[in-house]
Amino acid sequence: MLSFLAALKRILVGRPFRTERLKQAPLRKRLALPIFSASAFSSIAYAPDEVMLTLALAGLGAMAFSPSVGLAVMVVMLVIIASYRQSVKAYPSGGGDYEIASVNLGHRAGTTVAAALLVDFVLTVAVSISSASHYVIAAFPAMAGSQAWVATAGVVILAVLNLRGRGRSRIGSAAPVYLFVGVVLVMLAAGGILAATGNLGTAPSAGFEVVPDPDYPHGLTGLAGVLLVLRAFSTGSAALTGVEVPISNVHTLAAPKARNAATVLLLLGLIAGALTLGTMYLARAVQVHVVEDPATGLRLDGGPIPGDYIQHPVLGQLAEAIFGGGSVGLYLVLALTVAVLLMASHTSFNSFPNLASHLATDGYLPRQLRTRGDRLGFSNGILALAIAAIVLIWVFNAHVPTLIQLYVVGVFVSFTLSQLGMIRHWGRELAQTPDKRVRARIHRSRLLNLVGFGLTAAVLVIVLGTRLVHGAWLAVLGIAVLFFMMDALHRHYVQVDVELAIGSEDSATALPARVHALVLVSTLRKPVLRAVAFARAARPSKLDAIVVDADSERTEATLKQWEALGIPVPITVLASPYREISAPLIEYIRSIKRDSPRDLIVVYIPEYVVGRWWEQLVHNQTAMRIKNRLHYEPGVVVASVPWRLASSDVSTFLGPTEQGSAGTKPRNTSATLPISKPKDTP
Amino acid sequence: MLSFLAALKRILVGRPFRTERLKQAPLRKRLALPIFSASAFSSIAYAPDEVMLTLALAGLGAMAFSPSVGLAVMVVMLVIIASYRQSVKAYPSGGGDYEIASVNLGHRAGTTVAAALLVDFVLTVAVSISSASHYVIAAFPAMAGSQAWVATAGVVILAVLNLRGRGRSRIGSAAPVYLFVGVVLVMLAAGGILAATGNLGTAPSAGFEVVPDPDYPHGLTGLAGVLLVLRAFSTGSAALTGVEVPISNVHTLAAPKARNAATVLLLLGLIAGALTLGTMYLARAVQVHVVEDPATGLRLDGGPIPGDYIQHPVLGQLAEAIFGGGSVGLYLVLALTVAVLLMASHTSFNSFPNLASHLATDGYLPRQLRTRGDRLGFSNGILALAIAAIVLIWVFNAHVPTLIQLYVVGVFVSFTLSQLGMIRHWGRELAQTPDKRVRARIHRSRLLNLVGFGLTAAVLVIVLGTRLVHGAWLAVLGIAVLFFMMDALHRHYVQVDVELAIGSEDSATALPARVHALVLVSTLRKPVLRAVAFARAARPSKLDAIVVDADSERTEATLKQWEALGIPVPITVLASPYREISAPLIEYIRSIKRDSPRDLIVVYIPEYVVGRWWEQLVHNQTAMRIKNRLHYEPGVVVASVPWRLASSDVSTFLGPTEQGSAGTKPRNTSATLPISKPKDTP
Repeated sequence: MLSFLAALKRILVGRPFRTERLKQAPLRKRLALPIFSASAFSSIAYAPDEVMLTLALAGLGAMAFSPSVGLAVMVVMLVIIASYRQSVKAYPSGGGDYEIASVNLGHRAGTTVAAALLVDFVLTVAVSISSASHYVIAAFPAMAGSQAWVATAGVVILAVLNLRGRGRSRIGSAAPVYLFVGVVLVMLAAGGILAATGNLGTAPSAGFEVVPDPDYPHGLTGLAGVLLVLRAFSTGSAALTGVEVPISNVHTLAAPKARNAATVLLLLGLIAGALTLGTMYLARAVQVHVVEDPATGLRLDGGPIPGDYIQHPVLGQLAEAIFGGGSVGLYLVLALTVAVLLMASHTSFNSFPNLASHLATDGYLPRQLRTRGDRLGFSNGILALAIAAIVLIWVFNAHVPTLIQLYVVGVFVSFTLSQLGMIRHWGRELAQTPDKRVRARIHRSRLLNLVGFGLTAAVLVIVLGTRLVHGAWLAVLGIAVLFFMMDALHRHYVQVDVELAIGSEDSATALPARVHALVLVSTLRKPVLRAVAFARAARPSKLDAIVVDADSERTEATLKQWEALGIPVPITVLASPYREISAPLIEYIRSIKRDSPRDLIVVYIPEYVVGRWWEQLVHNQTAMRIKNRLHYEPGVVVASVPWRLASSDVSTFLGPTEQGSAGTKPRNTSATLPISKPKDTP
Repeated sequence: MLSFLAALKRILVGRPFRTERLKQAPLRKRLALPIFSASAFSSIAYAPDEVMLTLALAGLGAMAFSPSVGLAVMVVMLVIIASYRQSVKAYPSGGGDYEIASVNLGHRAGTTVAAALLVDFVLTVAVSISSASHYVIAAFPAMAGSQAWVATAGVVILAVLNLRGRGRSRIGSAAPVYLFVGVVLVMLAAGGILAATGNLGTAPSAGFEVVPDPDYPHGLTGLAGVLLVLRAFSTGSAALTGVEVPISNVHTLAAPKARNAATVLLLLGLIAGALTLGTMYLARAVQVHVVEDPATGLRLDGGPIPGDYIQHPVLGQLAEAIFGGGSVGLYLVLALTVAVLLMASHTSFNSFPNLASHLATDGYLPRQLRTRGDRLGFSNGILALAIAAIVLIWVFNAHVPTLIQLYVVGVFVSFTLSQLGMIRHWGRELAQTPDKRVRARIHRSRLLNLVGFGLTAAVLVIVLGTRLVHGAWLAVLGIAVLFFMMDALHRHYVQVDVELAIGSEDSATALPARVHALVLVSTLRKPVLRAVAFARAARPSKLDAIVVDADSERTEATLKQWEALGIPVPITVLASPYREISAPLIEYIRSIKRDSPRDLIVVYIPEYVVGRWWEQLVHNQTAMRIKNRLHYEPGVVVASVPWRLASSDVSTFLGPTEQGSAGTKPRNTSATLPISKPKDTP
């Protein structure tokens, strides 16, 4: 079982890497741009769809607003990018919004940002991969209905790739993004030319009528209409996720890091804007008609649409209208969209474990998230992200319009707090800067962050206001739960730190007066002899063998055998009228402690090391209970004297394999000998 | 949580009993008879039903055979009782069929008998309590449909009573059985008189017609008919379970034990025979019509029966016919039947844990089944039986006709092997007996066991042949699985015994050459200081502090602090290029062992004792893994040096409460001080 799992792990993950391999060449701009932008670019795979189908609730006429909504989203993006360009110069360490909020607003704000980002990283994976699964289905319609399976497969593949870790080619990551941008720009240009010459075709869904939702009988008029437009804007702002990637990865860039990051940000914004706006205008032009539920929201010639109609994503319909159904261009767009969506998720598979490891180092998450796995990735973080994303995919059956409702909350919590942090930051700078010219520049910077704060806070309010009941509450709940968990854990770690810190009153040289050793005897067999021998070898001040008299016949037999064997250690019988083992032992230890409180008591317990899982169930149960119980007694050390049963030989190399299989492979033999830093302090 | 569970346990189970309380006065015949016979007597609550509804498959005419089938069952019972009367004299220790088979046929036969009996004890509880639940419903028809809940409640109550253990009044157990026998005998006598005077009424179901099953169009003719009669006989032999109770409890009887047991057996047989035959004849006379599925098997005036018809048990219908519906007599019969069925289950709640404890002592079941709980009952056995019975009740929805198909297989496996064992026994006796008169008596005894063997083997074949496909396969499977489990466990225990037995080559005085102590250091905090102090107090020949360099920054910090604190122990850094902790440590230990193979190595590991459950998840994980790994290294002792975190104070008394809560209650304080049997062998 274990060996099978270990072998499977070796096949999937590969041989371990040495720690030195962590050092990597810095990333140049031309590679950083595609790698850091995949997340932002990929949103044109689903954001236009979500804007259009939200507006479609108010009927066909309302869909004409979609390019304007897209424009509004892009305006917000430009402001955020402008303010990030100055943030990255102020905080060039790669700590990102978490660092900005922590430093300027205190650790609770930092924790909030961290919780919000963790939730959004999970959602990035869930949304991107779910969207990708619909592009796969657009290419292979026979797979309709199995989107959750396709998406799960995608998450698993990404998780395994990330567990395999470093060593992948960066060019391999950058190329699909460049290709995607190139092909989409060509498609948009071609569409523009066709439109200008009046030769632009129509989308496959152009022939359908859009049935307005009964809640919106009069289109976009009135308060309901305004709220719907705001909701469309709020879902469209999914296009803004991924903007934070360059700022959290600035430390991996080539020097000058901050300036390069600013450049990458600018290019990211310009390209994402062009892609989003172009897609949205052309989608209107070819009359893409997408709705939340095609069966009720669409009609054909006044009657119901065909039962087997599958609604393809906007980008796919656009490619079909421009390049033609079944054309190489269409399949190229579909394939590259899937690739870029996978790259977007891959970004989260990098960001989530990184942030989690930062948080674990700072004591906000369990230490297990801090350690690097065999291949130097933060394996536990990768697994946690994959599991969380798969759960979301199955809960929502990979349905993007529902998943998107949970999305963006986290990233805007983070944006808003980050802007607020920067305002504080500039305020502090102002207080220390006498130079007038510099002060003027700081004032300008602060103004930008003020605008950014106003805008991102407004978007956050809009997001929460229009979508809280549609599912955003779940994201808020997730953030809150994470926040309280991390906060409680941090308080615990801080408390333990204080409790365990070595103070001036702690002597490094004080010693217990004497050592009183006890050997716990049950049935008198070889392991007991070994425990006695080991206890005697340690030459304690006093040595007692202890037998607890829970069964008088067995006790008698043990005593007789003890005498017959001539074991040179006195044996004490403890009465146990209630047939317990630990209670009389504890009582005895306490009575020793009462007589000589400064003695150290060492209890030697023979323990069996077994091979098969079920053997653990039939051995050691009493020993385990006693050990656990003894841990609560002050001044008592429990020494397990292991006896390996013959059956344990089978698994000598199975058991430890999980932990790195010392000795069974030669790789550690020479490398782990002590590197001779013995420091003999007198 | 734990304190709640502990409090609940105290309320349900009560305060612990002292071991001395085990001694009980021997049981006199007049109490032994009802207590040992409840199981046998109670079968008239369901056995007549099962015989009649099996025969009813071939139509109304076939049901006339039911008294003859009952008679055949009683003949088998008399033979078994006759042979048991001589078995109990040959094996008066209370080991029962398990002992007879083990001694005469070898331990595999014994294990088979044990497995068979364990399965049948579970089924006794499931069948009796399920049947009781139907009597409860007969008394309170409003509860129809919730039989599984009623049955579960019954099992839980019995389990709790048995966990509370000794101290119940034996007269309280005996009285309901006597009352039951008395009331049923009165009822049968009254019925007989009414029948003789021609005044006997009819049962509530007399008005229904019985629809034959399409498989039996011609009644009981042909091979199908013969097989059906055999099947009825096989289900009716459920009446034979419980006959083995006196022989397994002979040791609790007053002297002369064996003779008293023989008398009890005889009386048991006579009374059970009278009850069963009387019930079956009268049930025919009052025209009780019961079928497996009333909705399809019964008809009223050619049409379907009323939808709300609930089929009551035969004994209930008989009481209604004789005493009248709603009469005190009827409710008395119902109440006493429930009581005697509970007593029958109670017998299993005694037999199962007892047998399991015997098996655990002999090394066929885990040792946990051997130990007596707080109230001197074999708590784990009681819980195992209750859980198994409840599972069966829910799987079969407390439906007796289905459960009965699994029943009796085990008890007849046991009967048959026991008879075979007795034949062997007499054969051996013959070989050692020269006296002619005694030989003649032994020959007679052996003849009886030969007849018994033939009969019980025939019944076993009939049971398997007619019911294997109806559900008996599950019982056979259960017996087989138990057999193989017990056999594997026994082989394991035997192997361990051989492996661990102290031989002449094992010296009780040899000692390891020297002690080399290692203290494992991670972050340098108070627990490490304590571990160092404890290690130094033990005055090892050599003492090293070890830090594994999985993270170079932390290692540097630790080394600096080590020097600053002036800890008088040299510290060694182990390189860990793959970021593992245990692998380099193991390598280092092996290199020490290579240099001085006779050294004992003691690894001191600081360990946190935490209070809240989740704290265990965020602490000690690495320490645990290292400890487990070190257990596989020969000549290494692991000494845990516990550090109790402040949070552990809350649970100092919660943690151990389960195990007997030493010190938190004063009851152990004086009782468990050593009873001064120190043996100072020089």
